[in-house]
Formats: sequence, structure tokens, C-alpha cells
Amino acid sequence: MRYMGLLHQYKSYLPITEKTPLLTLHEGNTPLIRAEKLSEELGLDLYVKYEGLNPTGSFKDRGMVMAVAKAMEEGSSTIMCASTGNTSAAAAAYAARGGLNCIVLIPNNNIALGKLAQAIIYGAKVIAIEGNFDRALEIVREITAKQPITLVNSVNPYRIEGQKTAAFEVCDQLGKAPDYLAIPVGNAGNITAYWKGFKEYQAAGKSSSLPQMIGFEAEGAMAIVKGEPILNPETVATAIRIGNPASWDGAVNAANESGGQINYVTDDEILAAYRKLASQEGIFAEPASAASLAGVIKLKREGHFRQGQSVVCVLTGNGLKDPHNAIQSVKAEPLVVEDSEAAVMDAIRQLEQVGS
Amino acid sequence: MRYMGLLHQYKSYLPITEKTPLLTLHEGNTPLIRAEKLSEELGLDLYVKYEGLNPTGSFKDRGMVMAVAKAMEEGSSTIMCASTGNTSAAAAAYAARGGLNCIVLIPNNNIALGKLAQAIIYGAKVIAIEGNFDRALEIVREITAKQPITLVNSVNPYRIEGQKTAAFEVCDQLGKAPDYLAIPVGNAGNITAYWKGFKEYQAAGKSSSLPQMIGFEAEGAMAIVKGEPILNPETVATAIRIGNPASWDGAVNAANESGGQINYVTDDEILAAYRKLASQEGIFAEPASAASLAGVIKLKREGHFRQGQSVVCVLTGNGLKDPHNAIQSVKAEPLVVEDSEAAVMDAIRQLEQVGS
Repeated sequence: MRYMGLLHQYKSYLPITEKTPLLTLHEGNTPLIRAEKLSEELGLDLYVKYEGLNPTGSFKDRGMVMAVAKAMEEGSSTIMCASTGNTSAAAAAYAARGGLNCIVLIPNNNIALGKLAQAIIYGAKVIAIEGNFDRALEIVREITAKQPITLVNSVNPYRIEGQKTAAFEVCDQLGKAPDYLAIPVGNAGNITAYWKGFKEYQAAGKSSSLPQMIGFEAEGAMAIVKGEPILNPETVATAIRIGNPASWDGAVNAANESGGQINYVTDDEILAAYRKLASQEGIFAEPASAASLAGVIKLKREGHFRQGQSVVCVLTGNGLKDPHNAIQSVKAEPLVVEDSEAAVMDAIRQLEQVGS
Repeated sequence: MRYMGLLHQYKSYLPITEKTPLLTLHEGNTPLIRAEKLSEELGLDLYVKYEGLNPTGSFKDRGMVMAVAKAMEEGSSTIMCASTGNTSAAAAAYAARGGLNCIVLIPNNNIALGKLAQAIIYGAKVIAIEGNFDRALEIVREITAKQPITLVNSVNPYRIEGQKTAAFEVCDQLGKAPDYLAIPVGNAGNITAYWKGFKEYQAAGKSSSLPQMIGFEAEGAMAIVKGEPILNPETVATAIRIGNPASWDGAVNAANESGGQINYVTDDEILAAYRKLASQEGIFAEPASAASLAGVIKLKREGHFRQGQSVVCVLTGNGLKDPHNAIQSVKAEPLVVEDSEAAVMDAIRQLEQVGS
């Protein structure tokens, strides 16, 4: 049976009418992979939900396919967002697929063109303003309030509707809801969406229990943990470097209602988990993604979890989005030797002694 | 029903014994996406098989999971390959997953560390030799012939066994074999594997017909088209920049037996198809991947295909493997304006007039 995309797969749980186009790039249907070595190490039944295998490389595709399909249904010909990262890639791809124009507004300071490569190749029009990100978002909101242009930043309510399908998939793949759902928290839309999804699936009789939601901010951007916005958030995990989460209340609510918590992890803990995932399980995620695993390791160290409890860590994006971080974080230089069998065998023995 | 990976899914078609570990990173099960606009434009029923959504971002995962599982079955503790690209990423990831060591040999000239980022983060040991790629492969063959180390370059026969599963999936997803299978040709292992897969699936009664196999080399590396090795192959499509394909005979045989052909496309045709895929269909593939679509466009221009015939284009790798190419190929610079609603609206109107 051919998979036909999220809107087709979970139609009855989504705001889909007869007029909604079933737009798709085959988003969703991402692997739930058991982390074999980490399960043993931590005494848990640990899985990762690898959202990096969505079409544009992050979980943003789930919400964007819904938002763009609704924009098409409403007759919009142009979508717009402020973003320098995963959101702009997803918006540009679905606009291309749906035949819409896409305008991406970015701040002109510190433009990393590499991060915009996807939006550009998908054909988005990129405009840089002489102002910061908050100002870019303000202008997007002003323009989309007046013009026939659809706002697709996270304030678009269809984004969370699409994103909640990840919770459905976790239940379908695991055969039940896990005991815990661990997730990175940046703008907090994703934890809000997962919690909505788990509750709806339970209400529909598709799962019999609810997970405890455990969300993890980066220490340098832990607005919710501190209880106040962070003016200059800083963390190596750029995808969650957000000082004033748009879905703050949603995150707090998910943690409270589920008996979970919002906690934080340091950059060192994030990078250690990032390397562990790749070198022990063969899974390459964005640094921000590793905040979920880093959080589970931290809570385990502090005495949480009973032996064998099931935990799903959400890995939000593909490591290929930011490969330079990988290189820098492991600081590996190839060993250079002469081109002979003997010299290479010497090098192999040497590397084995250094150990892994 | 949870997908359990290629070795589980196609067990009866693979060299799997009771002792073969069903190693998996959930490779395979990649989207077959209908190219809606290109179908209309070309008068075909056109699909892309998007192999970039494999765990390490390329089709190499299919062959590597089989090769590494067999290495484990045989009691090997170390695998080795010569590669600067997709093969090393796949080898390193499955070695990590299976708990093996992975040694990657590369030439010391022109090391692009970015391309090795994946192998390094997955924990492979990288050794650079003072010699070229051919010499690196020679040394790998010498060492693996004598030491208890498993060679996982394409001469490892299990690689093609794993890769043939992509043909099974195409048939399962489409409900039949397509009229044509279009595929980039570099080292020629993939076209060989697909053809083997289509024939085996037909023999097993799972499909009633066979596709015509149409393979496309890059003009600067068209050894098979010319009938002689190319000493200094050159093309923007680095993943098929190969002057002396290892599976040369397999490719010629696939084309001949199926009534297809091995043809070539220029770098300009490849980049045009690469941009078209992203900006019209929302699919971001490696430049080399676009050789399949470029070839179909070329053959159509020359009068091939009947109206409505089904064509599947294999897209071998994820565009995120080489985002700088994307930027360079579209030469886009953001338009910089002041931070006011009016200035941004002016910019939007200006971009609309430039057209898309």
C-alpha cells in the first residue's frame, strides 16, 4: 500500500474539507528507531523518532504541508514567513510543490547563506531587512494582515494541527503511547502539538494511555525554566536558540497536564548526546535534536525512570543541515601516511590503540 | 504495521540466513513521488524515487546494510573502504549501528572535509594517503585480502544485493513495473542492481513486465557512451564523476537486455533539471541525481516516449549533501531593504516583476 502523505493518512483528525488539496511531498512516516545500545546503557526501552527524514530535513514539514494546503484552499497565491532556518526551507518547498509564491524575510545581520540554500533552490524570494529578527516577524505580520498573502510562521494555527500527527505516528509505530516523550523545546510549538496529538488519539480510542511530556530547553535559552524571556539567547543548538517562545503556555500546559516537566540541558550535554547518537547508534541529527536525548540522560542520572520504561526521544532535524558543527565538535583530522599497505596498517594499529 | 527495514522487508529475496542479524536504520521505504508539473509538461506519467531520504542521505544505505550485516554474520569486527563521499557515510553509519570499527581511506589531495563530516561524526577512523583515489582503493583491497577486515567498496557482492530492493519498492509502490526506469550512471552498480531487482521480482510473479532501463552518464565522464575509460573525468555531478565504472558490463547488459540505452547529459542539462526539480516540484536532490531527469527531458526532446507512458527517475542522494552547489547554481543574493512595511512591499512588487 503506497503511502500518500500526512493529509491523506490522518485526514479525519485534521481540518480538511472537500476543498482542501491533499498536497504532499510524502512528509511524515518517519522512522521510529530503537536505540539498542542506549537502551541497554540507560536501562530503558529507548526509541528515537527521526524527523530528519522528512522531505526538507525537519519536522517543520508536518505543519507546513497543512498550512500551505489551507492557503491553497483559501485561494491564496503567496505565502510569507520570517525565518533563517528550517521554517523557510519547509515553506519554500511546499510553495513550490503547490505552485504558490514564497517570500522569506530575514535580518541582514549575520546572514548565513548556507542555511538559506534550501529556501533559495526551492525558488523562494528572499528579502533581507536592515533590522533584527523580531522586526522581520513584525513586518511579516503587518503585511499579511493587509495583503492577500498568507502568513506561515508558527502563529498560523494550521502548523500545530499538522505537527500533531507525529504523536499519532509514534502510537501507531510503537503500538501504544510511550511512558515518556522527550523533546527539544525552542519556540515550544512542537511539544504543544505532540501533546494535542496524544490527547486526541487517546480520545479517539487509538491509544489507551498518555505519555509524560518531558521538554528540554538549552541552558542559554531557558526562558520557560527561568520563568522569564531571555534577551540574548545563546546555544550551539541554533534551532532552539529562542528567548521568548511563541507557544510558552502550550509547553507549560503539556508538562503540567501530563505530569512531566520542562527542564534544561547544557551545550556540553547536547554535544555529547549528539556525538553519542551518531557514533553509537548511527543516527546523525541536528545538534538541537540531541537536547531530547541529553535530557533523558540527565534525568536518568538524577534517578528518574523505572527499569525498562519506554521513552521516545524526538530528533527534530537532519544532521546534514549543519555538517560543520559535526566536524568542529569532534575535532578530527585525518591521519596522513604514505601510500603503502604497511604504512596504512601501522596507522590502523595506532588508531586502535588511541581507542574509540 | 511498523516498518522494520530492508532486510526484514525483503528477507526472502536476499542472501539472509538464520545467522544474519537484521541490522537496520530503517533504510529503504523511500517516497515514490509523482512529479505533477513535470508529468504535464512532458506528457508522461512521471515519478521520482527519492533516495535522499535514506538514513545517511543516499541510496548507498541499501547496499551497505546488507554488506555490514553479512560482515557481522561472518564475525568480522572491522570494515574498510576507500571513499570521499556517500559510500563512507553509509559504511560509517552501519558500522556504528552494528558495533563494528570502520576505516575510511582517502587521498590526501583536495580533501573536502565537509564531504567527510558524516563519516567522522559516525565515528569512522579516517586515514589519508599520499596518493590518489585509485591507489587508496588498491591498498584497501590488499589489506582486506590479508587481514580480518571486510572490504565494503562496491566490489563487495552484497552491496548490489541490497541495492536491488529499490526496484522491488518501485513495483510495490506503483503497483507494477514502470515503462521506463531512468537512472544516473557513475560507477554503474546501481543500474545493475535495479535491473537485477526488476528481473527477480518478475520471476517471482510480483510484477508482470520489465521496464526499459535508461541510464545517463555525465558528458565529462561518459566512459560507457564513448566505449573507453575517461582518464580525467570532470562534471559538476561529483557523485557520478567516475572515468572507469566498476560495473561497466552490468550497465551495458541492463540497457541491452531491457531494450533501453546508456546515454549522456551535459552539466548544463543536469543543473537545469536540478533547479527544475526543486523549484517546480519542491524536491531537493544531489546534482548527480538530476542526471536521470535531465536524460528524460533530453530523450523527450528527441522524440522518445509515447504520451502518458510511466517513467520513474531515480534521485540517488539528498541535496543537503552539497548545499553550496545550490547557492552557486542559482546565484541568488537577497535583496536588502530598510525595515519598514512599505520598503518590503516595494521589494515584493519588484521581485514579482522580475518574474520567477
